[in-house]
Amino acid sequence: MPAKASKKSTRKASARKRTTQSTKWVYAFGKKTDGNSKMRELLGGKGANLAEMASIGLPVPPGFTITTDVCTYYTKHKGAYPAGLDQQVKAAVKAVEDQQKKKFGSKTDPLLFSVRSGARDSMPGMMDTILNLGLNDQTVKALAAKSDNARFAYDCYRRFIQMYGDVVMGVQPRDETEHEPFDEVMDKLKKERKKKEDTELSAEDLQELIERFKKLIKQRTGKSFPQDAYEQLWGAISAVFGSWNNERAVVYRQKYNIPSEWGTAVNVQTMVFGNMGDDCATGVAFTRDPANGEKVFYGEYLINAQGEDVVAGVRTPQPIAQLVNEMPKAFKELETVRRKLERHFRDMQDFEFTIENKHLYMLQTRNGKRTGMAAVRIAVEMHKEKLMTEKVALQKIPAESIDSLLVPVFDPKAEKNSKSIASGLPAGPGAASGHIVFSAGTAEREVKAGRKVILCRTETSPEDLKGMIAAEGILTSRGGVSSHAALVARQLGKVCICGASGVQIDYHKKTLTAGKTLLKEGDYISINGTTGVIYAGAIETTESEVMRVLEGNLKPSKSYIYQLYDNVMTWADKYRKLDVRTNADTPEMAKTAVTLGAQGIGLCRTEHMFFEGDRIDYMRQMILAGDEGERRAALKKLLPFQRKDFNGLFKAMGARPVTIRLLDPPLHEFLPHDDTTRRQLATKLDISQEVIYERVRALHEENPMLGHRGCRLGISYPEITEMQARAIFEAAAQVKKLKKPINVKPEIMIPLVGFKAELHDQVEVVHRVAKEVMQAKNVKIDYTVGTMIEVPRAAVTADEIAEEAEFFSFGTNDLTQTTLGLSRDDMGSFFDDYLAKEVFTQNPFASLDQSGVGQLVEMAIERARGVKKDLKLGICGEHGGDPASIGFFNKVGLDYVSCSPPRVPVARLAAAQAVVK
Amino acid sequence: MPAKASKKSTRKASARKRTTQSTKWVYAFGKKTDGNSKMRELLGGKGANLAEMASIGLPVPPGFTITTDVCTYYTKHKGAYPAGLDQQVKAAVKAVEDQQKKKFGSKTDPLLFSVRSGARDSMPGMMDTILNLGLNDQTVKALAAKSDNARFAYDCYRRFIQMYGDVVMGVQPRDETEHEPFDEVMDKLKKERKKKEDTELSAEDLQELIERFKKLIKQRTGKSFPQDAYEQLWGAISAVFGSWNNERAVVYRQKYNIPSEWGTAVNVQTMVFGNMGDDCATGVAFTRDPANGEKVFYGEYLINAQGEDVVAGVRTPQPIAQLVNEMPKAFKELETVRRKLERHFRDMQDFEFTIENKHLYMLQTRNGKRTGMAAVRIAVEMHKEKLMTEKVALQKIPAESIDSLLVPVFDPKAEKNSKSIASGLPAGPGAASGHIVFSAGTAEREVKAGRKVILCRTETSPEDLKGMIAAEGILTSRGGVSSHAALVARQLGKVCICGASGVQIDYHKKTLTAGKTLLKEGDYISINGTTGVIYAGAIETTESEVMRVLEGNLKPSKSYIYQLYDNVMTWADKYRKLDVRTNADTPEMAKTAVTLGAQGIGLCRTEHMFFEGDRIDYMRQMILAGDEGERRAALKKLLPFQRKDFNGLFKAMGARPVTIRLLDPPLHEFLPHDDTTRRQLATKLDISQEVIYERVRALHEENPMLGHRGCRLGISYPEITEMQARAIFEAAAQVKKLKKPINVKPEIMIPLVGFKAELHDQVEVVHRVAKEVMQAKNVKIDYTVGTMIEVPRAAVTADEIAEEAEFFSFGTNDLTQTTLGLSRDDMGSFFDDYLAKEVFTQNPFASLDQSGVGQLVEMAIERARGVKKDLKLGICGEHGGDPASIGFFNKVGLDYVSCSPPRVPVARLAAAQAVVK
Repeated sequence: MPAKASKKSTRKASARKRTTQSTKWVYAFGKKTDGNSKMRELLGGKGANLAEMASIGLPVPPGFTITTDVCTYYTKHKGAYPAGLDQQVKAAVKAVEDQQKKKFGSKTDPLLFSVRSGARDSMPGMMDTILNLGLNDQTVKALAAKSDNARFAYDCYRRFIQMYGDVVMGVQPRDETEHEPFDEVMDKLKKERKKKEDTELSAEDLQELIERFKKLIKQRTGKSFPQDAYEQLWGAISAVFGSWNNERAVVYRQKYNIPSEWGTAVNVQTMVFGNMGDDCATGVAFTRDPANGEKVFYGEYLINAQGEDVVAGVRTPQPIAQLVNEMPKAFKELETVRRKLERHFRDMQDFEFTIENKHLYMLQTRNGKRTGMAAVRIAVEMHKEKLMTEKVALQKIPAESIDSLLVPVFDPKAEKNSKSIASGLPAGPGAASGHIVFSAGTAEREVKAGRKVILCRTETSPEDLKGMIAAEGILTSRGGVSSHAALVARQLGKVCICGASGVQIDYHKKTLTAGKTLLKEGDYISINGTTGVIYAGAIETTESEVMRVLEGNLKPSKSYIYQLYDNVMTWADKYRKLDVRTNADTPEMAKTAVTLGAQGIGLCRTEHMFFEGDRIDYMRQMILAGDEGERRAALKKLLPFQRKDFNGLFKAMGARPVTIRLLDPPLHEFLPHDDTTRRQLATKLDISQEVIYERVRALHEENPMLGHRGCRLGISYPEITEMQARAIFEAAAQVKKLKKPINVKPEIMIPLVGFKAELHDQVEVVHRVAKEVMQAKNVKIDYTVGTMIEVPRAAVTADEIAEEAEFFSFGTNDLTQTTLGLSRDDMGSFFDDYLAKEVFTQNPFASLDQSGVGQLVEMAIERARGVKKDLKLGICGEHGGDPASIGFFNKVGLDYVSCSPPRVPVARLAAAQAVVK
Repeated sequence: MPAKASKKSTRKASARKRTTQSTKWVYAFGKKTDGNSKMRELLGGKGANLAEMASIGLPVPPGFTITTDVCTYYTKHKGAYPAGLDQQVKAAVKAVEDQQKKKFGSKTDPLLFSVRSGARDSMPGMMDTILNLGLNDQTVKALAAKSDNARFAYDCYRRFIQMYGDVVMGVQPRDETEHEPFDEVMDKLKKERKKKEDTELSAEDLQELIERFKKLIKQRTGKSFPQDAYEQLWGAISAVFGSWNNERAVVYRQKYNIPSEWGTAVNVQTMVFGNMGDDCATGVAFTRDPANGEKVFYGEYLINAQGEDVVAGVRTPQPIAQLVNEMPKAFKELETVRRKLERHFRDMQDFEFTIENKHLYMLQTRNGKRTGMAAVRIAVEMHKEKLMTEKVALQKIPAESIDSLLVPVFDPKAEKNSKSIASGLPAGPGAASGHIVFSAGTAEREVKAGRKVILCRTETSPEDLKGMIAAEGILTSRGGVSSHAALVARQLGKVCICGASGVQIDYHKKTLTAGKTLLKEGDYISINGTTGVIYAGAIETTESEVMRVLEGNLKPSKSYIYQLYDNVMTWADKYRKLDVRTNADTPEMAKTAVTLGAQGIGLCRTEHMFFEGDRIDYMRQMILAGDEGERRAALKKLLPFQRKDFNGLFKAMGARPVTIRLLDPPLHEFLPHDDTTRRQLATKLDISQEVIYERVRALHEENPMLGHRGCRLGISYPEITEMQARAIFEAAAQVKKLKKPINVKPEIMIPLVGFKAELHDQVEVVHRVAKEVMQAKNVKIDYTVGTMIEVPRAAVTADEIAEEAEFFSFGTNDLTQTTLGLSRDDMGSFFDDYLAKEVFTQNPFASLDQSGVGQLVEMAIERARGVKKDLKLGICGEHGGDPASIGFFNKVGLDYVSCSPPRVPVARLAAAQAVVK
């Protein structure tokens, strides 16, 4: 949320005050190194780690980093640079020249540079890179002589011109029909020379190509390709800074919640060549397996190639283990580097290297991205290896990733043999397989008919909710990790892949196309929400090992994954201060949650109980009642059902606390809105359709969210509160009289309170009924009555309300809606605009708006605890399962968070991380 | 709002801590007087003023007052009394005995008491009274002997038994079919004795009646009528305290916003008799005419009667002036008392007196209730007479009452000659006459057909709004001064009488019955909203003298009422700090408001401009547009209309500031929702009905109040903001180039901002357009851009938002809706329950919820001014015309309030009162 961003921008602003002539804009690395790995904010991840590697003696080609502050300045001043930068760059170039004993732009022994972006967080492929900078018509000759390889030199030069022409000078296809213009020129030349592959072009061919490239640039831009090395350098630096705001980068930042104020650094580094001959190579490697976390050297390389060749996939790289055969010495060096990196950075590293004439050079290292599974395994094992303390290991596991140990998975062999057709953002972990459907309605119908389905949509909206609930999994072709689909899937614990841009969905034709694969509605599709990979066809899924152990179907000793899970959860429970409860309405949900470590129920929504079977009819009878007498008669029929529900819930939860919220939604939600159901109901209840119609009309509300709901119902119809309280206490009395009595502690929660008097009114009803039941049943029931804080008025008058309450539970869903004046159901129409314009950096219903809603939460806590020091405080909105929000709730001193059952382990972990941080 | 109540209850609570054995619960008046007129809270109005009168030497029968704290104690402890009360009452009785040389309960010369309620504010007839207390089978004989009038004595006794039996012992009709049981017994006796009138019953008859009364009590209650004087006294005291919570009193308190915590005092006073013979009398009088404020002695009396006879209306009282003939000495004394009272209390007094054997006794005095007109005249004239300082006079005029000088009035003669059929609460001042209609739809139809109508409803709801706008006046049979009808009427400036409980409305038969008068739909009815009186038939109305003067149609010197108005407004403008602006959307509204003293426009709602004539079609075309291009094309057509509107507004307002709010409501409000209009639109715009239907469906929102509206529209469709800004600046340029250039200062207001980034986005659009227009037209326009604070997030992040804003205007309507989580349109279904249960003491949309919403307003001001010390702050919600809210806005330091044109004088006055207070 903007909070974060804005605090950061304040920090930046104060930083900028310091930017006078004397500010250091340029940080060297090499023999003399100015920076270190802690300076990510200023130097970007790549720059900070190049500095760090250099300073611990790893073979880093020397260079320098221009800070992110320059990027911010550049953006703000529309392309101008701060005073003093020019001199600092010159001095830094000079230092590299001295160290390398080469000269930038020299005709005899030229120094060449790469120029790369490097933001605080890696944004792979989003921004621009220029290689071989410093080459011109003169220096290329020197390079040819020095390398004794004219073809190599001219190939470097033509690549440089092409890259520079594209990135810096903007020679790009004029529209979608045109090919890449440099490629066209090359293709033409190849045809003329009757050559098929680029590699067949001779040094002379390349010289001709270079001339044609230069002509193309002149033609298209009116400017000549610059021969001056410094002019080249500044062009490249500006292009990289400029690329921070290119469309790709902006979209990427939105997807991953990266504030635009961060900016990128620019790294200028001495070129080394992996493509000067067969004693050269280039590669990328991980210190451990990033997929499953196993401690093996993992990576790949190409002999006689440049770095981008590995990524581009033109040639197929070799597994790193092969290198021991081809270059045993370099491999041994790499193994040493691998160990050194892990010992030094104390985390799994993802690094790039180049071997130039048998010499190893390190070009980059960073903490390696990894799957959730790998994150857990690496943290646990690195702790065992004493590379990480317990606290550090705990923090190294993104809280969400614990999910991937719990969700159903594909049978590994079956997955390997399946046809991957595309991939997207992994937004809901687990594996799901089913028939393709393109609408929520079809999803519901198919599932009713007994089939499993995957709901495939370009994006989802609130109307799709029922279909999402019905489906095994959800696949969208648009939207990021904060999109509606992702958010809802996470809350529902559904498998989900979103933003799979390689997938085209045609609602009209009812087809899904990915590359050359065309699937129709009804075809099987399988999605791996943990990895984001999509497969055509069905793949068998199996329950996760952890769940099998937790449910007693597998011995703990038989599952290494369970041991990892158990290890992490033990850490989490050791450090966390927040209790973790669950939002559960049924005994089944409650049992699952307890299995996953829930310490109580933080929210049982009683209204869900009114929809099943006959109950809905009695509920409707109650709503249609003409007076209190009729209403009481209908409520009397509902009482045994509610009592039974609570009985089941109490049995599932044992002595754990159970918070029950009294009826909350507006009554019209229970009435039938279509003619057929209305007719049936009229017959069933023996009343006229007219009456039903009239009542539906009377109950219609302009803004039901702000209407006759919550405690307002109980205040208008105290008999509803009475019935619910009676059901709770009678059920409590029942379980207290079991052979093995359960010492229940119901916590009765009054919703939507804004005024102390509202709570007082309802508390009195509950106390009265409690007394009646306890006398009648001759038991003592230990219960409390509290309220939800979910409208701003409750927050600002929390001191008054606390006088009547024994606990508070923050209903942050509604509190967000009212504080922002924003209906969650209606925000779809402008949510994308709000992300695009960076009003929202995240969905405020997914992650708490700390600077807005959070202020009210803090205010309420302070005021309430001023009156009742020990008032129990919890939160039961959907933010209760969001790690960032949990961090906030820990900070402000809540007693517990409550989340949906599948989120319980995530919440336990996040709660511990909040403490350790 | 509860704020007030709760602060008071805190005060009470701390007061209660002091209530130990030593607390003084009883305050004497008479020779020795403990209290004074400033102790209204503790002694009630009656008790405080009895004490005051006694202490300035007026002839008050001695007695004592039991404090309101005892009432609170009694209510809280379910009928128990605090320790020490008993002794204090005994001591107080003893003091009266000593002074009167009589003994309470004495068989020879008994002291008799009256026992009356007396709350802080008068609640006439709502609580219980007992007279002649102390009579029993023995003392009645002594009274007979002493008065030498056995009939009188036994009549007193039977009245006492009847009153005591009813009020204290609860002998009342068992159901609606039964007559008053004591009356039944008396009627039976009269029949037996063949007497017609009560007065024909002899002393012996009355003795028999007394025995039968006692039997009735025994029969009904199983208890005997108490003969012990102290038992009688405590019974009566308890009955009075208990009557504070009787249904009548509770309903009354709701109507008049009296908190239940106030409690009543009990006044125990020596009985004096106005009914002991023809040298006795009783009466009520006002020191000036309470209807028009004229300085004349005003009142009425009855010879040989008890106080309740004057009120009961069995005999017709004489005008007070007659008394000079019947009892010249007493009249002279009364004249002296009248002058003394005004000199002492420095306000118009309403007092009760009794003459017993030619001796004048004062039983009560209080500030007299008066009409709005009288309030103004009395204040102005008492100031001239040096009875009040300017500041006191200013405060003596309820701000609302200034309205009654401005509204149309009935021709006085015609009104006098008309048939009054009932009365209700005067809720919207002025006079209106028209045909009776019973539904909003009929009202609209009839008015379209050229007829004037009065909308008569049991109560109104938001669906009636259009009918209310169409009608001349509104009459309801239910609901108090905070009801929907009253609130809306006040905002619309409509004549309104509400809660006319003597009127029965039958929607089915389409009749209105009041007593024996039956009126049908279409019949004429006339209502005086200033007095609350309802007349059958038409009465001619005339424009008020003040409006005629203000509009230049009458010379100021010809109108005494105008001079009064001018006098009060001069005072108001002298003292007030708040500016008063108006909410106006048309030049006509603006002109009226300026006439009434508006200093600018605080809110021009631009959306109202889109409904007229062709505009709505272009607006719909804009909404139905498939892309930005089509949208811009439609907006281009709307531009000239908007420009013209603003041109008119600027001309009407001259150099005064004009705040223009950009488009606020959700777009679907502009689309047609019925098939016919949809079909017409399809033809007109040459698009398919399908498209319209689809768009209506797509724009449907669950909670439009919290949906795509306000600045969210401008952020999604910047071209709308552009068009509106362009229209404003082009209109400004036009009036700047008039022969007499108007130096306009438009203030552009961005609605529904919750995030700084939202405002920033829209401010940039406005600035860009401003620059374009100013360059194109070559003028400099002095404008500002600000925002509404109307969601809680804006209030808590006001420091951030202030950075982008040049002014804030609090939109307290929406801020109330979001802070309370309460939709104004939907609260009708439970509003009455909330009043009944005292969750609300007022409608929070009529008078600001100071303790809830008010806290957010204060917070926003503090935070915003912390960033921008001189940020201009105003309020444009409907609270801007509510005196209590204006008091709050003055206190928290706003620069201006903005209200509907007819409320401007009220706001000016209230703003001054807020300062003076």
